[in-house]
Amino acid sequence: MDEVVLVGFWSSPYVMRVKIALIEKGVEFVYKEEKDIFEKKSELLLKSNPIHKKVPILIHHGRPICESLIILQYIDEVWKQEKQLFSNDPYDRARARFWIDLFDKKVSDCGRRMWASKGADQDAAKKEFVECLKLLENELGEKPYFAGDYFGLLDIALLPITCRFYTYETFCKFSVEKECPRFMAWAKRCNQRESVSMTLPDPYKVYDFTLEVKKRLKIE
Amino acid sequence: MDEVVLVGFWSSPYVMRVKIALIEKGVEFVYKEEKDIFEKKSELLLKSNPIHKKVPILIHHGRPICESLIILQYIDEVWKQEKQLFSNDPYDRARARFWIDLFDKKVSDCGRRMWASKGADQDAAKKEFVECLKLLENELGEKPYFAGDYFGLLDIALLPITCRFYTYETFCKFSVEKECPRFMAWAKRCNQRESVSMTLPDPYKVYDFTLEVKKRLKIE
Repeated sequence: MDEVVLVGFWSSPYVMRVKIALIEKGVEFVYKEEKDIFEKKSELLLKSNPIHKKVPILIHHGRPICESLIILQYIDEVWKQEKQLFSNDPYDRARARFWIDLFDKKVSDCGRRMWASKGADQDAAKKEFVECLKLLENELGEKPYFAGDYFGLLDIALLPITCRFYTYETFCKFSVEKECPRFMAWAKRCNQRESVSMTLPDPYKVYDFTLEVKKRLKIE
Repeated sequence: MDEVVLVGFWSSPYVMRVKIALIEKGVEFVYKEEKDIFEKKSELLLKSNPIHKKVPILIHHGRPICESLIILQYIDEVWKQEKQLFSNDPYDRARARFWIDLFDKKVSDCGRRMWASKGADQDAAKKEFVECLKLLENELGEKPYFAGDYFGLLDIALLPITCRFYTYETFCKFSVEKECPRFMAWAKRCNQRESVSMTLPDPYKVYDFTLEVKKRLKIE
């Protein structure tokens, strides 16, 4: 049995979070890509996450852990001796958890509406999305990373969505860089890390894939 | 400035979580009840949680922490020397987080539909709710508490909803005890704790309040 297995799908930002965290920690793992996540989920996926039936799933010593934020915290707690991702200070931890929670609630709602809807609903989603990024920019302030001078859990949680920005920008006709220049400067800084550049897919490939998904779901 | 302040509203199960945790830890706190949560939220609430504008808010040394699950973890991390609420084992922690996450997603969705909707939607909500409780019963197994032999974070997170069972049962015409006897036996066991009996309101009062809310929202 492999010690660490990650079950994933290439376009999922939640899977990317886990990959980045494992690489940052220097944890060796076997990556298992779902071949057909829409039509036929693998036996391993269904057996390991029977309730949500979703990726990412981290299987450690045969025991599955589900939900990306839970996995990230698990990774930081298990491989404690390696580079730390999470502050020791309870207040800083609470703050990071708060922003991840807000981001996850917003993105699951706005992200889809930005490419799947039209007109007023699409505009509203774009507006909410930009507002959320501006709150995050404010939290970042002048620091290089969210936790200060080290690349941490909040950076890892937020970063993967940036590979969808080109898709959002194309559908909604706006520029994230223009709206949120400091957020984009942070994203570029993070992209220089090997863990990130090895993980994030080409934004054009993500866009093409979104077009395919729209077609498959019969969304005009 | 008070060291620990909890801003809350009596009928919120999320606020009850925080109260129970503080009492279990033996932390002294000042409780500030929102007088009119629907029409006029307090200055303190709006200033302390400007993004969500919701209770509970824990204010510790003047710094606000929001979102009940984040607050529970903060409490366990800050008052570490007191009775421990969360396992030291990363896998057990991940498991507790998983069930709380599932429960929170289900309850916010099903709970409201059980008293605010009718017919097929209400039936579907009841069915999903019972399914969720059965999953939790299965996780509990034969243990006295979810973490084993001590009253922990998952118990605290789940328990407050039990004061709404009478409301759900009355609107949806079913018996939680009949559907999930082991879950109810666990709830009764937990209710013997002072932290719980001091915190949970009378289920009839909760039911009357739900009727008021329905009227206020003009739900038939």
